[in-house]
Amino acid sequence: MRTSVKLDQLMEALRCLPGVGPKSAQRMAFQLLQRDRKGGLQLADALSQAMTEIGHCSQCRTFTEEETCHICLNPKRQANGQLCVVESPADIAAVESTGQFSGRYFVLMGHLSPLDGIGPSDIGLDELDYRLKVGDIEEVILATNPTVEGEATAQYIAELCHLHKVNASRIAHGVPVGGELDLVDGTTLSHSLLGRQKI
Amino acid sequence: MRTSVKLDQLMEALRCLPGVGPKSAQRMAFQLLQRDRKGGLQLADALSQAMTEIGHCSQCRTFTEEETCHICLNPKRQANGQLCVVESPADIAAVESTGQFSGRYFVLMGHLSPLDGIGPSDIGLDELDYRLKVGDIEEVILATNPTVEGEATAQYIAELCHLHKVNASRIAHGVPVGGELDLVDGTTLSHSLLGRQKI
Ligand SMILES: [Zn+2]
Ligand SMILES: [Zn+2]
Repeated sequence: MRTSVKLDQLMEALRCLPGVGPKSAQRMAFQLLQRDRKGGLQLADALSQAMTEIGHCSQCRTFTEEETCHICLNPKRQANGQLCVVESPADIAAVESTGQFSGRYFVLMGHLSPLDGIGPSDIGLDELDYRLKVGDIEEVILATNPTVEGEATAQYIAELCHLHKVNASRIAHGVPVGGELDLVDGTTLSHSLLGRQKI
Repeated sequence: MRTSVKLDQLMEALRCLPGVGPKSAQRMAFQLLQRDRKGGLQLADALSQAMTEIGHCSQCRTFTEEETCHICLNPKRQANGQLCVVESPADIAAVESTGQFSGRYFVLMGHLSPLDGIGPSDIGLDELDYRLKVGDIEEVILATNPTVEGEATAQYIAELCHLHKVNASRIAHGVPVGGELDLVDGTTLSHSLLGRQKI
């Protein structure tokens, strides 16, 4: 801006946020300076605490500032022998919102991607292997994304489960509830046909 | 997320940014935690410095952490008798980028809006009145936005200039360069006709 070095620095720093280009960084900086300095200071504080204190749960690898997260420490969830494997912490929120699952989670923080050099140990499969060996898991529910990489990762983990004689299941693919059939893509529809259930 | 209070706080705090809803706040928080903690810490630092140290230039009212901004302190610009009046600090950057102006600025930080209770003193017109009285301004270029409020504000300031016997001019409205005539709205086109110049 030629009038404020600190304003330039703020606009530059805002661009570390995904989806924020020069124009929106400028709009954000002006908005905070003109109307919400308190909000800006709260954000600064929340950011520095989160970046320095949040690590990964020792059990499920999700984001937490605790040694082990509340879900993993919950005795009711420990008594449930189900383990839901997801790609990211956001997926935990999605599964929780269904109210259909009361077991524990395992977060891969990614998926297998040999071309990008991401192998089994990079997505925590050493730890998962150990947990399957310990023996308190009865069923692994594979809730990785319905993408090529997600499917390959689910397949790989299913084999790991079979080695340890632990049941593995894959979440169903099919027509989204409330959707219109003619708007559904062919691959989804063919999964939906193959996975049909008697009524 | 039920697994991290600090992550919840970060997602909540990110929503002070304009255009950021719950979904994009989540994406931003995960992106920083997973891939760019250094960027997150730099943003925290830039935010807290900007929010606490940036104020307004004593002369032109733009954002600056100095008492008076570099543009106002520049002797060459002081020797130029032109003062460009704009609504926001972003407009300074826009005018500077043209390379057509080498005078000083005055930033209203808004426009007259009687319905919202924003009168002359709220947009710094007391200070502008004083600067016109002092006598080093030869021409005021009114570069407020081409909106109803921007026009009314320009009109008001033009009258102030006349009282002090200072020339006032309004930036030209017309067909944007490189645009197609049939895509230009009627009001702009009629301004463009009325403001036609001999070639
Ligand atoms: Zn956990
Ligand atoms: Zn200034």
